[in-house]
Amino acid sequence: MKMLMNVPETVVADALRGMAAAHPELTVDVEQRVVVRRDAPVAGKVALVSGGGSGHEPLHGGFVGPGMLDAACPGEVFTSPVPDQMVKAAAAVDSGAGVLFIVKNYTGDVLNFNMAAELAEDEGIQVASVLVNDDVAVTDSLFTAGRRGTGATLFVEKIAGAAADEGAPLERVEAIARRVNESSRSFGVALSPCSTPAKGSPTFDLPAGELELGIGIHGEPGRERRAMMTSHEIADFAVDAVLSDLQPTGPVLVLVNGMGATPLLELYGFNAEVQRVLGERGVVAARTLVGNYVTALDMAGASVTICQVDEELLRLWDAPVQTAGLRWGR
Amino acid sequence: MKMLMNVPETVVADALRGMAAAHPELTVDVEQRVVVRRDAPVAGKVALVSGGGSGHEPLHGGFVGPGMLDAACPGEVFTSPVPDQMVKAAAAVDSGAGVLFIVKNYTGDVLNFNMAAELAEDEGIQVASVLVNDDVAVTDSLFTAGRRGTGATLFVEKIAGAAADEGAPLERVEAIARRVNESSRSFGVALSPCSTPAKGSPTFDLPAGELELGIGIHGEPGRERRAMMTSHEIADFAVDAVLSDLQPTGPVLVLVNGMGATPLLELYGFNAEVQRVLGERGVVAARTLVGNYVTALDMAGASVTICQVDEELLRLWDAPVQTAGLRWGR
Repeated sequence: MKMLMNVPETVVADALRGMAAAHPELTVDVEQRVVVRRDAPVAGKVALVSGGGSGHEPLHGGFVGPGMLDAACPGEVFTSPVPDQMVKAAAAVDSGAGVLFIVKNYTGDVLNFNMAAELAEDEGIQVASVLVNDDVAVTDSLFTAGRRGTGATLFVEKIAGAAADEGAPLERVEAIARRVNESSRSFGVALSPCSTPAKGSPTFDLPAGELELGIGIHGEPGRERRAMMTSHEIADFAVDAVLSDLQPTGPVLVLVNGMGATPLLELYGFNAEVQRVLGERGVVAARTLVGNYVTALDMAGASVTICQVDEELLRLWDAPVQTAGLRWGR
Repeated sequence: MKMLMNVPETVVADALRGMAAAHPELTVDVEQRVVVRRDAPVAGKVALVSGGGSGHEPLHGGFVGPGMLDAACPGEVFTSPVPDQMVKAAAAVDSGAGVLFIVKNYTGDVLNFNMAAELAEDEGIQVASVLVNDDVAVTDSLFTAGRRGTGATLFVEKIAGAAADEGAPLERVEAIARRVNESSRSFGVALSPCSTPAKGSPTFDLPAGELELGIGIHGEPGRERRAMMTSHEIADFAVDAVLSDLQPTGPVLVLVNGMGATPLLELYGFNAEVQRVLGERGVVAARTLVGNYVTALDMAGASVTICQVDEELLRLWDAPVQTAGLRWGR
């Protein structure tokens, strides 16, 4: 598998150097692997810190900026960052109002963020943590006990970020983040496997005529494999998997997310089918976002995330955001 | 080649329906294949219309909105739109201040936009046209006489769009668009071929251990094939190809553009190498944009576009823009 890189060992550091060059509004510590908004700490504001393995870009570094994260800690590809990074990030962004850790539910991430929370509190930083576990495909998987954290991470980071931006205190930002996670469900499919730089070849096999329903963002197994389906059929399957679990009683946010290698042309086409199914099921899409946001390197495929919103969550979703990966308003 | 679609015949219409659902700020005519900003025509403003084959998304539909295009006409995949679409688009957005057609240099596009300009003028719409031909890789190619139009299209659409937004008259917007094109050069590489929905298989062969230097955005042949190179070596080759032609004497805009299937992690790493070469050659990158903007379906690879700017062009680049694919300020 050909990759646009030098050697696997420097892929993450190289990307961080390239990110620093493109984004003067960020402070990128390439050595310590911490991405921080340049104006941090923001006086009086609760700070949001997230992180996880690299390979899911723009998540999380691309979501650092006003209205979303204050800092991100990228680990090696598909590997949790270490507590040291998280503590450094927390120290860099804490204004005294406390720090919220947003943690995708993978065993390594949970362990390391827990350890980091203790270490940061030893340094006098008030820390709260929220776990994201939205993927309805499977309970327990290759790297997870319980549900995996996937697309809802974007909703949690954006909406909790807006609450923090408005001046909400730590317990309130934490409660909102938790509410967003509890109101969100995801389901993904893979049309092709992904290849990590270290391995240099596909991390799993997927026969030419089949797709994997319920794939994880590291290529972890889903529910089943089937003969290739149409966009219409995939949307039926994915949206019904989400709705059978969430059963929304009000308007929703929709994320139609590309896994990395699926063209935007196909993602928009898939969105047409997702919207059709939602309409047929009587679900109102208040806002829809289509694009590559929570990716799995060069995997082809897509996921659907749905988040039920009330007026407050919708207002926070619409609030201005200024990051490399997500930007609107102001 | 598996694709997230129903049947090849409806890929473009499906994508337009999905785009309409995600972007209430656009008016999408799925039947006529015209994407228009909802508030068009904007009183007194020169209108910008572009278009081309589908498969390069977010170009052009994703660049419709305040500060950039007023309308886009998507053709079939890798196929020019027809004059009818362009005339409809021009009529929908003309406020009386005239319309600028932004045309990538491919034989079909040039022919059809020329015909559309005549038809629109017959309807009393004042039309000017600017050709984008920035790709230094080859002169004459599979679909082109002269240089191909690629990444610089984004610079032309953004900067001319800002000039129109400021109230510049048609001849001034046209002159600025022409200046941006003349100040821009691009060079692209492919690590993998792309597959069109109609064909369902790769449009060209690229052996496992090789890359194509100077690829076009439809997979047209470039300068040469070589054994796979590192990101460092590719950046040297691509940037030198651009600089040997442009020889900038002042600061530049840099676009490090993904062809579609190359992960953002790799694109940022490639940007680090591009910036290194620019630094070594004494070229100052005033602004850098990294991401998938002018794509070739599921092709893996990247291109570098450089545009020399003066104070005016830089100010227009920095001006607010509100589109699905590019957004900042305001």
